[in-house]
Amino acid sequence: MAKKKRIGFVGTGRMGANMARHLKDCGYPISAVYDVNKEVAEALATELDCMHSPTLAGVTKASEVVITVVTDDAAMRKIFKGKKDNLLMGAGRRVFINCATVSPKIHIEIEKAAGQARASTLEGCMASSITQAREGTLYLMVGGKPRTFERVKDILEALSSNTRYIGPAGTAAEVKALVNMVMNINTAGLAEGLGLGAALGLDLALLREVFAQTGANSRVLETDGEDMQIRDHECYFSAAHASKDSGIAAALARKYRLNLPLNDATKAQYDRMIEEGLGELDKSGIAELTFKGRHRTKRRKKKAN
Amino acid sequence: MAKKKRIGFVGTGRMGANMARHLKDCGYPISAVYDVNKEVAEALATELDCMHSPTLAGVTKASEVVITVVTDDAAMRKIFKGKKDNLLMGAGRRVFINCATVSPKIHIEIEKAAGQARASTLEGCMASSITQAREGTLYLMVGGKPRTFERVKDILEALSSNTRYIGPAGTAAEVKALVNMVMNINTAGLAEGLGLGAALGLDLALLREVFAQTGANSRVLETDGEDMQIRDHECYFSAAHASKDSGIAAALARKYRLNLPLNDATKAQYDRMIEEGLGELDKSGIAELTFKGRHRTKRRKKKAN
Repeated sequence: MAKKKRIGFVGTGRMGANMARHLKDCGYPISAVYDVNKEVAEALATELDCMHSPTLAGVTKASEVVITVVTDDAAMRKIFKGKKDNLLMGAGRRVFINCATVSPKIHIEIEKAAGQARASTLEGCMASSITQAREGTLYLMVGGKPRTFERVKDILEALSSNTRYIGPAGTAAEVKALVNMVMNINTAGLAEGLGLGAALGLDLALLREVFAQTGANSRVLETDGEDMQIRDHECYFSAAHASKDSGIAAALARKYRLNLPLNDATKAQYDRMIEEGLGELDKSGIAELTFKGRHRTKRRKKKAN
Repeated sequence: MAKKKRIGFVGTGRMGANMARHLKDCGYPISAVYDVNKEVAEALATELDCMHSPTLAGVTKASEVVITVVTDDAAMRKIFKGKKDNLLMGAGRRVFINCATVSPKIHIEIEKAAGQARASTLEGCMASSITQAREGTLYLMVGGKPRTFERVKDILEALSSNTRYIGPAGTAAEVKALVNMVMNINTAGLAEGLGLGAALGLDLALLREVFAQTGANSRVLETDGEDMQIRDHECYFSAAHASKDSGIAAALARKYRLNLPLNDATKAQYDRMIEEGLGELDKSGIAELTFKGRHRTKRRKKKAN
């Protein structure tokens, strides 16, 4: 068996940190961590007994593979193309696995930039949440060059219970955007069904059971149905994040001149959550908009939760 | 074991006819059938070797239990309250099981009218399709008086793999409206996801597989996903029917002053199908609106199918 590669992490929020913890559990040497929030990175470095690199180039230098989990396209450009410091400085032969949900086009842009530095990149789009990251059971969709995929397949498979190669750079992000778009629509629709059921005075546990056994069944019914009923909106996937992903899909739809009214209505609901100060609730919090009287009692609601 | 009751049928479209066929297979005596389309009723009477009753009162007279599957609220009023001829003439002690998807309030209205004739009614709302009707594997939600439910439980269970008592008259129809509302939203959302995937040039079989393993999964992905891709819109549950059911939910939402933008957007899509002559396609036909270029080629499409 080949020696396990040294892995650095850029972006040590809950997803990135849990992926690092799991890879360490699997015996991978974690070389260095970096985050714009230095305290968070420092704490993780202490926990994992690795270097807290003050620079991006330092992470590259210390690692054979760098996993990045950053916020958005702008953050991706900053870490790979920042003028004073970036991951591609001295990056030859390294593999960068980019796991944030960002636009398809940024993956193509970064692959090109990395190629010029004789490094390689992969998209590792995750359709799962922080619990799966910690347990190494992510659903991981991979985009990029097949030979790069082969080079880091062991790492991807350590992180994931289901690693699926999708196609060239950008395609995994496209599929991810579609997954989240459909998931968000189903979530918004479920919140309407349960909200109307509550208004009718129906037993929501019974209603959820009927939904589960009929054409109304969905994955989000399993993951979010009860949370909507009992108003448990602890955040696994925020409403703000849902808005962003539905927005990526909306931008793609505009590009191809497709009219997608359900996605538009869903994005509008999540945007409304942000406007009303509910953007950091879990996506299940959309039920706060569809259950009668819930969102009018915004101040009291915070206590009720 | 008690003697099996004589069962009459009013409304012998595909659902009603298949229910009658299955109950006959189960050994129930089918007494009489009636339909506004006399040829359809006559053919079924010949097939099942039972009476084709020229009147509604004749069905009641010949039967201990009458199962009705009619189009809408107006049809319900006509068969139960028609001036010259109706099911409640001489109806004392009979049980009427009303299986059409109609409004909650009509079930309450008909229960009251039947009570005045010393007869009983039940809602038997079906969340399944013609295949399940033929096989006796309907998902059946029952509304009405518990003691009426007990009287015809054997018949309901013969028709169904899952019989669920919901509550008083009207409540099963409410739950059914919510089931179909959520199902229709999920269907419309899936059509958007696959339509955008097609525009992006993604492999739709792969995309459906990813959906199935992630937060985008749903029952309609199983039942309608491939049909949307290959344009097989043979009708199990028509777009016109979907529009009607989403409309029932929309009316309930208005009554309770709930804003349900996803349901509104879904109803608008199904209404658009009707306007564009696609109302008799299966609900999966909504993909004709979301796949680039499909609905523009309306005439040629019919051949392509």
